[in-house]
Amino acid sequence: MKLYHSQTSPFVRKCMFIAHHLGLADRIEKLPAAANPVNRDKSILPWNPLGQVPTLITDDGMVLFDSRVVCEYLDQLGKGSFFPAGAARWRVLTEQSLADGILDAALLTRYEGAMRPEGMRWPDWTAGQMDKINVGLAHFEKNVDDAADRIDIGTVTLGCALGYLDFRFADLGWRSRCPKLAAWYEKFSALPAMQATKP
Amino acid sequence: MKLYHSQTSPFVRKCMFIAHHLGLADRIEKLPAAANPVNRDKSILPWNPLGQVPTLITDDGMVLFDSRVVCEYLDQLGKGSFFPAGAARWRVLTEQSLADGILDAALLTRYEGAMRPEGMRWPDWTAGQMDKINVGLAHFEKNVDDAADRIDIGTVTLGCALGYLDFRFADLGWRSRCPKLAAWYEKFSALPAMQATKP
Repeated sequence: MKLYHSQTSPFVRKCMFIAHHLGLADRIEKLPAAANPVNRDKSILPWNPLGQVPTLITDDGMVLFDSRVVCEYLDQLGKGSFFPAGAARWRVLTEQSLADGILDAALLTRYEGAMRPEGMRWPDWTAGQMDKINVGLAHFEKNVDDAADRIDIGTVTLGCALGYLDFRFADLGWRSRCPKLAAWYEKFSALPAMQATKP
Repeated sequence: MKLYHSQTSPFVRKCMFIAHHLGLADRIEKLPAAANPVNRDKSILPWNPLGQVPTLITDDGMVLFDSRVVCEYLDQLGKGSFFPAGAARWRVLTEQSLADGILDAALLTRYEGAMRPEGMRWPDWTAGQMDKINVGLAHFEKNVDDAADRIDIGTVTLGCALGYLDFRFADLGWRSRCPKLAAWYEKFSALPAMQATKP
């Protein structure tokens, strides 16, 4: 199978974590991509009109996106248990939504501060996105005991979100406000699949 | 159960379509919400740090978001078939991703043009988002025969996306460029669950 890929995309990292963890990584051919909301990557558009990574082309020719769909597909292909059934399913899917939402806010903040011309930046917009990130992290700090040693789509997305914040928002200082989350992340980021997918 | 709700949110509409179609609508207490990325709705934050609708509180006290998770939960609760198994699952989930992506682009365009102070609007940003919408619609036009009479999470999300474009982007003129999609939508929007959830 082929994956439109970027080494720095946290959404691609979710998929590659699962691929590594389930022994599927060698079956994935990585197609280079430069996804960008303004200068859209025309090589992706015929497959995915959103022009985003990850976009997966399966061995039988299906085209799948976005990361939530690709992750669930890889989990099923590799007979994983990243997507449990029953009540646990709703918990981990909502954790994924929250961590994905933190990532969306982080990306919008980056587009605002690093891509948009200087005179057109709106501080209220950035403040709203940063509040999403900080209230989201406080929620995880409060509930991190639920995460414990779980490895599922909820914790993988959380791990990728924290990794992205460290990569692009190194000055955020979230560890001092979220010490329990920091301890959880230190352990989680030592997993081989996290090490293999560093940005 | 209780749902943080807005009559004009297309993401809430996805959930309420499923609720109406499966006879669950009477069991949902609608909580008024004013989700906004800059002036965040503080009533939602204790449940959902993203401050977004839809956010569902189930009868046994679980808190679920975003629309993808709430839709799947309601489908399972009402023994529906909006989320098929097997190969059909990947098709409809990717359709949902594309239609959700069109909606995300439409919302970002609206925030840019209606909320951001005038001097801070960036035409290249809006152009990129509008291109997502238009390339996405062209993709659905080309593949609309696959939709036919299906009622599942793919077609529901597509229907809600087109309804939102008519509601907020009345001048877009997508019907002239996408005549087959227009014919499909005319039929789909006549469904009782679409009629019951108009913005």
